Parts: sequence; structure tokens; C-alpha cells
Amino acid sequence: MLRTAWDGPLAPAEPRQAGLYAETMNVHSTDLRAALARIVGEPHVLDVPASSPYNHDATIAGGLRGQARLAVRPGSTAEVSEVVKALYALGVPIVPRGGGSGLAGGAVPSPGSVVCSLERMTAVRELSPRTWRMEVEAGLSTAHVHRLARENGLLFPPDPGASEQSQIGGNVATNAGGPHAFKYGATRDWVTGIEAVIAGGEIVRLGGACRKDVGGYDLRALLIGSEGTLGVITAVSLRLIPAPRAAVALVAFLEDQARGCEAILDVLACGIVPAAVDFLDAFTLRCAAGGYPGEVPQQARFALLIEVDGEGEEVRAQQRELREVLDDRCVLLDQPTPRELWRWRDGINGVVAGVRGGKVGEDVVVPVERLADLLEGFAAIASAGGLDSCAWGHGADGNVHANVLMDPGSERDRRAVGRVGDELLDLVVRMGGAISGEHGLGLIKSGQLSRQWGAAALRLHAQAKQMFDPQGLFNPGKKLP
Amino acid sequence: MLRTAWDGPLAPAEPRQAGLYAETMNVHSTDLRAALARIVGEPHVLDVPASSPYNHDATIAGGLRGQARLAVRPGSTAEVSEVVKALYALGVPIVPRGGGSGLAGGAVPSPGSVVCSLERMTAVRELSPRTWRMEVEAGLSTAHVHRLARENGLLFPPDPGASEQSQIGGNVATNAGGPHAFKYGATRDWVTGIEAVIAGGEIVRLGGACRKDVGGYDLRALLIGSEGTLGVITAVSLRLIPAPRAAVALVAFLEDQARGCEAILDVLACGIVPAAVDFLDAFTLRCAAGGYPGEVPQQARFALLIEVDGEGEEVRAQQRELREVLDDRCVLLDQPTPRELWRWRDGINGVVAGVRGGKVGEDVVVPVERLADLLEGFAAIASAGGLDSCAWGHGADGNVHANVLMDPGSERDRRAVGRVGDELLDLVVRMGGAISGEHGLGLIKSGQLSRQWGAAALRLHAQAKQMFDPQGLFNPGKKLP
Repeated sequence: MLRTAWDGPLAPAEPRQAGLYAETMNVHSTDLRAALARIVGEPHVLDVPASSPYNHDATIAGGLRGQARLAVRPGSTAEVSEVVKALYALGVPIVPRGGGSGLAGGAVPSPGSVVCSLERMTAVRELSPRTWRMEVEAGLSTAHVHRLARENGLLFPPDPGASEQSQIGGNVATNAGGPHAFKYGATRDWVTGIEAVIAGGEIVRLGGACRKDVGGYDLRALLIGSEGTLGVITAVSLRLIPAPRAAVALVAFLEDQARGCEAILDVLACGIVPAAVDFLDAFTLRCAAGGYPGEVPQQARFALLIEVDGEGEEVRAQQRELREVLDDRCVLLDQPTPRELWRWRDGINGVVAGVRGGKVGEDVVVPVERLADLLEGFAAIASAGGLDSCAWGHGADGNVHANVLMDPGSERDRRAVGRVGDELLDLVVRMGGAISGEHGLGLIKSGQLSRQWGAAALRLHAQAKQMFDPQGLFNPGKKLP
Repeated sequence: MLRTAWDGPLAPAEPRQAGLYAETMNVHSTDLRAALARIVGEPHVLDVPASSPYNHDATIAGGLRGQARLAVRPGSTAEVSEVVKALYALGVPIVPRGGGSGLAGGAVPSPGSVVCSLERMTAVRELSPRTWRMEVEAGLSTAHVHRLARENGLLFPPDPGASEQSQIGGNVATNAGGPHAFKYGATRDWVTGIEAVIAGGEIVRLGGACRKDVGGYDLRALLIGSEGTLGVITAVSLRLIPAPRAAVALVAFLEDQARGCEAILDVLACGIVPAAVDFLDAFTLRCAAGGYPGEVPQQARFALLIEVDGEGEEVRAQQRELREVLDDRCVLLDQPTPRELWRWRDGINGVVAGVRGGKVGEDVVVPVERLADLLEGFAAIASAGGLDSCAWGHGADGNVHANVLMDPGSERDRRAVGRVGDELLDLVVRMGGAISGEHGLGLIKSGQLSRQWGAAALRLHAQAKQMFDPQGLFNPGKKLP
């Protein structure tokens, strides 16, 4: 069953050695605080009352909350190293934290853990527009990275949303996606180097400024998407590209979902690579209609949100071609500006969460030709569980945000949500899909990888964790069981 | 010192357990042959005389040759699994082999090993043009993958060269690059799933048809570029894109190298993303002039080979823009067709190797702004070693194929080559570069990663090997010391 809350007052993850465990338990918070204050300075060791934002991330809409012991805000890689060294020696769990915009509970602290927030590490170590790259510290906001690129005529394509709040280190730690991952790939594809602090406070540098490097095994890739369970990412080297000179949007409103999914395949077949092909289902569309910069047709039950970018002439020609492909399938083809389109799209999560007071969102993927079957299957599962549901996502990637609405205070709703998630993941795996496309497993799906991976792969997975984090102190309970 | 040959008659890599080692030594080749024949059938277990092609790869131009005990050609993943299981149980080293077109000795068998050639595994398991993907077995030639894509209006962008000979499994195992990696990325970026056989014959499947998947650690990425040292890749899922509708080429001949490297930065600055920006230095240009489809100007000492692809109108506009940027820096701006350009480019390796009878090519990377310094430094090092040298490569990626010419029969040349390689790698690391951009470490640079990586990263690297291959039987002596 999927988790919608810490199930009771969990003990801190047990360190492997009994001696260390005992030591942890014996470390008084006042001693711990003093030790950490010596490293980062008094003002940067914080109490974490139950209501503290350090106790949750964006899954708070589903009621998910943890309980950290303290939060620490190191100001440099050296300080992160010292903090990790101290906590590792004491056997205290460490929860690395970016902007807290995650949707899988990856930053929700386990009871008794220390949150290691990267918020003070915002330095731009290198910005080299002429060679299309930058190196920045992990705490820099995603929006800041975007702005730095844009101001220099460049683009950092990954756009996972909540960009003012989210931090680049968190994006890398979750391999964040977003609508434009269809054309440009997820965060992974833009990271050429990582600096991280691993077990015992050791600093590792994997990769760097070069765009190609096949000398060693790709350990950089292991850290990308590791959700803070292998170490603390402190800085990243990013590659950029020249900003496309033009972009246009197209919104196709269709009368039914099956036809909408078929239209996605038609878009793929026409030989254009759109920057993004998102979709909204009927329920989502109804909730979001009020915010649309135009008129949503009454009979619309599905919408495709398409962006094409590139050179000016090319982009207009592609827009015309897409109009031709989509025209007779739609009840309306609209052309908001890309800015209007994405502002609308970015608001959807909040609008939907407000309908019942809360929602729990799954993030799953299927091969794109199974999208219609998945959406239909999910609606049936949620309905059987007595819950309202809706879905949107990155259609051409087969990446679906499947949401069930709930009252966060209702025990009945919580149980039903768990069952729906369970059946949904089963369905996805039967379709040859993946249990998470871009949000990660975090806390809500920790331990669920066994649905998708075989025994030998799972054993390697456990060994990878062991290799980076022998005592299991980095973000315990996330990703892994 | 870099290796230009197996240094004397190496023993097979020592299995970790003495018992197994003894067992290996006691396995008569006739017994081994019988055991393997029971799995793959008599005709697919082959003797490997000294002159056999199974004893070398494309480093034969530098005289590098190994000595396998037998070669086996399994016809299915199940057979690979059985073969690996049998060899692993006996402690016999296993050398996975693709097309043998590698330039780092990665497929040169260690003495006493069994070559596991994927040549019979050429099935196309899935070809789905409308969803832009295919799943193929590892032994399919790269050219075949390209043709399948092209016949369906699609493109598989990685183009590492020698495409009729090279196999897709080998491309994945080396994370092969090529000129178009500048725009499109290396092989890694196009692999969504891998099927592989690891220690003990276990089959693992990592990823699949979906373009996004963040459930588990990216173990798929560990296998990509692992050079056969972690297991045998048996099949891969690839993503494709619609073929660009047009492509044009541009060759810029310049009077000197420093100006040529500066011109690469000017190309980057103009906001266009060319598909490829290769370069040839003066010596290479002189050797290759005869094959150029046109006239190479007498005073040319450096050439840029540029391709732009995309929509027809856009491509012509970009070509005009690049001409404007490059015009007053060049002695000639020529416009062969892309096909003419790459046919010429593909022949260069062979032409240069023929000058002295042999050559040894290094494959290094530096941040692109250091390219001029690297080329100058390399020429000085080679010249101090009394060797002729030349360089070409993927300029905008900072990826240099630094070649020294040698007589493969000369002991003096061999020693000099080793010293030159040594100093070159030092220089590259001092410049913040990488010791291999796309060829891999193979045999010729095995164990050299310690120049580039720190102690903690190297420890993780060794643990990754241990985790996949506890007895150290997969391609021993390659990549790792």
C-alpha cells in the first residue's frame, strides 16, 4: 500500500551497528546542536517545531508531514562535509533538502533526523555564455538558473515547475522533468558534473565542465535521481544551449479522451518534434477552465497543450502543419502565447488540490501508445474506490500525473487513496510502464520498485545504496523501503 | 605509461578465490569447448589462432593483439546467460565482443579468456516508427540501426564511425560518440533500456521502452560505457527522432590553428546549434587533401567541418549566418554535400594510419576554450618524443583524437608513444579535461582514471565493479588496472 503519511511514530532508521544506534539515542539534542553550531554558526542551526516548513514538502496537500530533530543550513561544501561527517559519526539520519517543492515526500524528514538545507548555497561558481555552460551551487533556485541562461541568450531547458521555490540541487537529486522534457530530456541530460558529499563527509567530484567523458563508470548518473539517499549534492555543472528564437503554442480541445490520445500519436507521426505535448483530462479541464486565457468550449473533454520552438519561420510552418493534422479532430484549436499557456498549466496543481481540500498525485509512465488504456484504467480504479480522480501530464512521454482528490482529515479517504495507488501501479507495470516518471519514489512510493524490477536488478540497487551509504543514514525511508 | 601491447604473456586475471583459480587452470580447453558446445552448438565454439580477428580490434594499427582461448557465439540471451554461468563457475575470463571496431583495445582478449561475440544476436525485437523507438539485440550493426530508422523517416543520431562493422551493443558498452554528438549527444542519450547478463549468468533488465523513468537508481547508465567490464549487454531499447528534413555542410579552411580554434568559439557565440563541428589540423589536412571532394587551398593549415540540419529554410538561413561569421577568417569556405563531407571524414583514420605503417590515437577532451592550448601542447610533446603527430576531432565538444605515427615493429617508437601519451594525459587533466571522450579506456588506458578522479570517487568506482562482477571475470584488464 502506498503511504499517505508516516505510519505511526517511526523510529529513526536503524544504523547497521548496534553501538552507533545506542550512541545516537544518547546524543542529546543540546549536544548535537552545539556540535553543528560549531560548524555552521549558531544562527544556522534551527529548531523544527511541528508546524515548521522543514517538516514537509509539497505533498502537504495530501497531509504528509515528518518530524525532524533539527535543521542545519551549511554555507559551503566544506561545511556540508563537516556536518555530514559529524552526523555520520553519531549515526544521526541526514535529510538533504532543496526547495521543498517535491511531490513524493522525498524531503519529508524521518523522525529524529537532521534536515540539511542547501538554501544558503547559492553561488554561481562559473557562468560562461560563450561555451554554453555554468557551474552553480545546489541551493540556487531553478528560476535563477533559467534567468541567468536567458539573460545570456541561452536556455536551460528542464522546467519541472514551481521554479521560484525549487532548487537546482533538488532538480538534479530527483532528475526532475517537466513539459519540455519531451524535446529536451530531463535534468539528467543537462548535468555534466556533480560535486557531492557522501558517507563520512567525503567530497566527490564526478564529471565537470566537459560535455563528453567516458573514462569512468557513470557514477554521476547514479546520483542524479537518487533523491538524497546516496549523499548531499552541493554543486552542479550544467550545459546550456542557445535559446530558441521563437516559440508558439497550440491548444487543441477535443470531445473525448480516446480521440485525444490518438491525436498525440498523430502529432508524433507528422515528423515534427514539439518542445512539449501535455494533456489535461475532462475533470482537470473543468477545474482549470476558469483560468484559461480564452474560452474553453463547453463540449471539450480533453485538451492537448503543445509548444513548438526554434527559428521563427520554421516554427510558424510547424504550427501550420500541426493545425492541419489536428484540425478535423478538434472542437477548437486555440493559439495562446506560450507564456499564457504555461502560466495556466502551472496553476493547475493548486486548483485541483483545492477541490476537496487535498489530493494525492501519482506520477506514472506508460509507453505512449498505452496512454488511453492507462487513463481509462485509472479512472475505473479510482471510481471503484469511491474517489474522484483526474489526470494530466506529459502526453507524448506517456507520463501521467494521476490524481485522486481527498479530504486530508478523512481516514477513509486515506485508506482508499492507498488502495487506488496500489492498483494503479500494478496496472502501469502490466503495461510495461514505470512507477515514476519524474517525481521520484520519495516517501510515498518507497520500496515499490520491486513491482517493476527483477530480483537481480533489485539486489544491485541495494548494493548501490550500500556502497554510497553503508550506514543507511542518507534520507532513510525514501526510495528504498 | 600507456600500453601499446600486452606487456609480456599476462596470466588470466586472477579470480579472487584461490580455489576457483586452481579450477580454471585445471579446465582443459577440450572440456571447456565441450561445455560451451552443449550450450551454443558445436559450430559456434571457435578456435582462436594467433592471427584470428577475435584477437584484436581496430587498435591493430598500433600492433595491439591479445590471445583468447576460445570464442563463443551465443544465439540468444538465454545462451549468453548459460555461457556466462558456465564460465563464471569455472573462473574463466569473459571478453564480450561487438564489431571489433574499437580504438582503445577494449575487445582485445586477455590471455586465456573466452571471447563472447554477439555477432549472431541481430534480431529486431520491436520497431515502432509511430512511437519513435526500437528494441534490438546487441549484435545488430550500427549501420543497420541507422537504415531501419531512415527507412521509417526517423533518425538514430549517434554516428561513431565504422558503422557497417560496429555493433549497437558495442556502441552502448562504450557510450560511443561521433561528430553529431555535439547536437544530439552520445549513445547514452538514446538508450532507454538495457538487457544484460551479469555475474553468474543472471539476466537483468534496466529501463525499457519508456522515455522517462526515475523509480530506481540509474543502473542502466552504469552499464553504458562500462566497456564489457560489468556484464554482457544483450539487447537495447532505443529512442529515435524524426529525421531532419534537410542538412547542409560547410567546410572552412583557415590559415592557422589558433584562428581555427577561435572560429569554433565564434560559431558557438552566434546562437546556432550545428549538428557537428569537427576539425582537422595541418598534418591531417595534408594527408587527407587527396580525398577531399574539391580543392584544398595550398595555404590551409586547419579546417572546420560543419553540418547544420533541420527544416529546409532554417538550414539555409543558418548556413548563410555561419558563412557571415566565418567568411573573413577563412581562406576558403566550401560547401560539399553532407554525404561527401562525411565520406571524406570517415576515411581519415585509415589514411593517417598508412603514413608510417601504424598510429596510436589518443582520445581526450578539454573544455572547448582550451582546445588551442591542448593542440599546441600535444604537438610539442610529440615532437619532443621524436614522433610525428596530428590531431582531429569534434572541436565544439573539445574532443581531440591526438595521434602519433609509428612503425608498429619499432621498439623505440613504442616506448616513445607510451611517454607521449603519458604527458598528454597529464596536460589534459591539468586543463580540467577528461582522459577519454568517446573511445573509452579499454586496454590502452586501463587504470589511468586515477589521474582524473579523486580517491573517494575511485573507491566507489572499484565498488561498482565489485558489485556487478565480484570475481573480476568480465573483460579483465580493461578500464580498471
